[in-house]
Amino acid sequence: MRREITGFSNPTVKYLRSLREKKYRKAAGKFLTEGLRLLTDARECGHVPEMLVMSAARDPHPLLDELEAAVDAAGGEIIETSPEILSKITGKDNPQGVVGLFAELDTSLASLDRSASPIWLVAQALRDPGNLGTMLRTGDAVGAGGLILIDDCADPFSVEAVRASMGAVFTQRIARASWDEFLPWLRSGKGQLVAASLRDAVPYRGAPYQAPCFILVGNESRGLPAEYELACDLRVTMPMRGRADSLNAAVAGAVLAYEVLDALEG
Amino acid sequence: MRREITGFSNPTVKYLRSLREKKYRKAAGKFLTEGLRLLTDARECGHVPEMLVMSAARDPHPLLDELEAAVDAAGGEIIETSPEILSKITGKDNPQGVVGLFAELDTSLASLDRSASPIWLVAQALRDPGNLGTMLRTGDAVGAGGLILIDDCADPFSVEAVRASMGAVFTQRIARASWDEFLPWLRSGKGQLVAASLRDAVPYRGAPYQAPCFILVGNESRGLPAEYELACDLRVTMPMRGRADSLNAAVAGAVLAYEVLDALEG
Repeated sequence: MRREITGFSNPTVKYLRSLREKKYRKAAGKFLTEGLRLLTDARECGHVPEMLVMSAARDPHPLLDELEAAVDAAGGEIIETSPEILSKITGKDNPQGVVGLFAELDTSLASLDRSASPIWLVAQALRDPGNLGTMLRTGDAVGAGGLILIDDCADPFSVEAVRASMGAVFTQRIARASWDEFLPWLRSGKGQLVAASLRDAVPYRGAPYQAPCFILVGNESRGLPAEYELACDLRVTMPMRGRADSLNAAVAGAVLAYEVLDALEG
Repeated sequence: MRREITGFSNPTVKYLRSLREKKYRKAAGKFLTEGLRLLTDARECGHVPEMLVMSAARDPHPLLDELEAAVDAAGGEIIETSPEILSKITGKDNPQGVVGLFAELDTSLASLDRSASPIWLVAQALRDPGNLGTMLRTGDAVGAGGLILIDDCADPFSVEAVRASMGAVFTQRIARASWDEFLPWLRSGKGQLVAASLRDAVPYRGAPYQAPCFILVGNESRGLPAEYELACDLRVTMPMRGRADSLNAAVAGAVLAYEVLDALEG
């Protein structure tokens, strides 16, 4: 059943709008996802929004009908509102015609099953939500199990990260942990920790990768702390033919992940 | 010799501030680069800014002294101003202490020397300045000759693209052309055009790459037009193990570029 919201000062509008800010997302434990494509990806992965907000000016689409039916069947709320109010919620001039509200996914390290995949991505202090989303998307492409966020990373449930992930926020497991939590967890089972590094490293092509392989990428400006690099089982270098001595973090992770994929399954 | 600017309404401040917008950059043929690191990269590649704007609250640094001397020696202008006015120019709350003004670089296709490198990156209708800058950075890393921008791409001289390039905007050649200009130019000499594609494609690992290899990446949401794909000499696929059927454009370009680098030089 649809509920209509016509007022800008409606408390639901204010609540949804507040979720653009990290502190309110964290307090509520909820996040927003925009657009029929991402929402359909989510549904096909078993994630149905708790609330669906549709613009009265949306284009009709059979997938939107299916989505609405799924939300209704799951006891979720369905709201119809004006394009202007949807703009207020998303903060965008031309919002996609539909937005979903989700409960944040479980990001505990303990809930990860490392045997579920031969490849895992690990990011340390990754600050850019676009890079974070791109790593999720790459993880999906290489069949990784998920992305483990070490130390103070960008929020994987921000609108920017969700958008850059192209739906992979729903297909990849996401865990958050400090280094001091991550390392003992890693060492409590099978797992090779690999970093792109200039320190005592071997060429990334043909390096002895082993599953499950955890590919560690460092902060965008500072790279990995030396201590973290030294804790790795394998340090690999990529050719750097130009002036720069590093790649974009998401790019470095992707080049390495495709190499590992080939080594383990090629 | 330093000139001091103390007023927000100073015409030079207004002029520099206007360069944050593409239309004013285009009209002036100038662009801004922020931060000592990028400006030093530029200088070391032979690009000295026409004007250097320094915050009175900047940290002293020998590289900044060298930069100032280089600008002075080249007859450029050196301006000292308040952090607040520098913020107004850059549009950032905490601007880096120094900004340089450069004349836009030559982006004509005719001026490219394709024999200068075995790898060239080509982007079609790339809309995200961060992706564009990241491709420049990757190009630098793989020793590419440059980045050719086809059709309506983001501006390589925007602050975001320059920043994401990490200085590669000064080391990589950049050309802009329509597809109808690019293809005849490509066919007028040696050059293999390669695209990541699902159409009649071979696996990207071990594909028969040939130098000079032009790696073509398509628009972020639509990918390459079918006609462009068909014009390629080689179409390659990358493994897609997940739900998605594509990678971030800059990531796809990088994974392919490292594969080509290995094939041609490995």
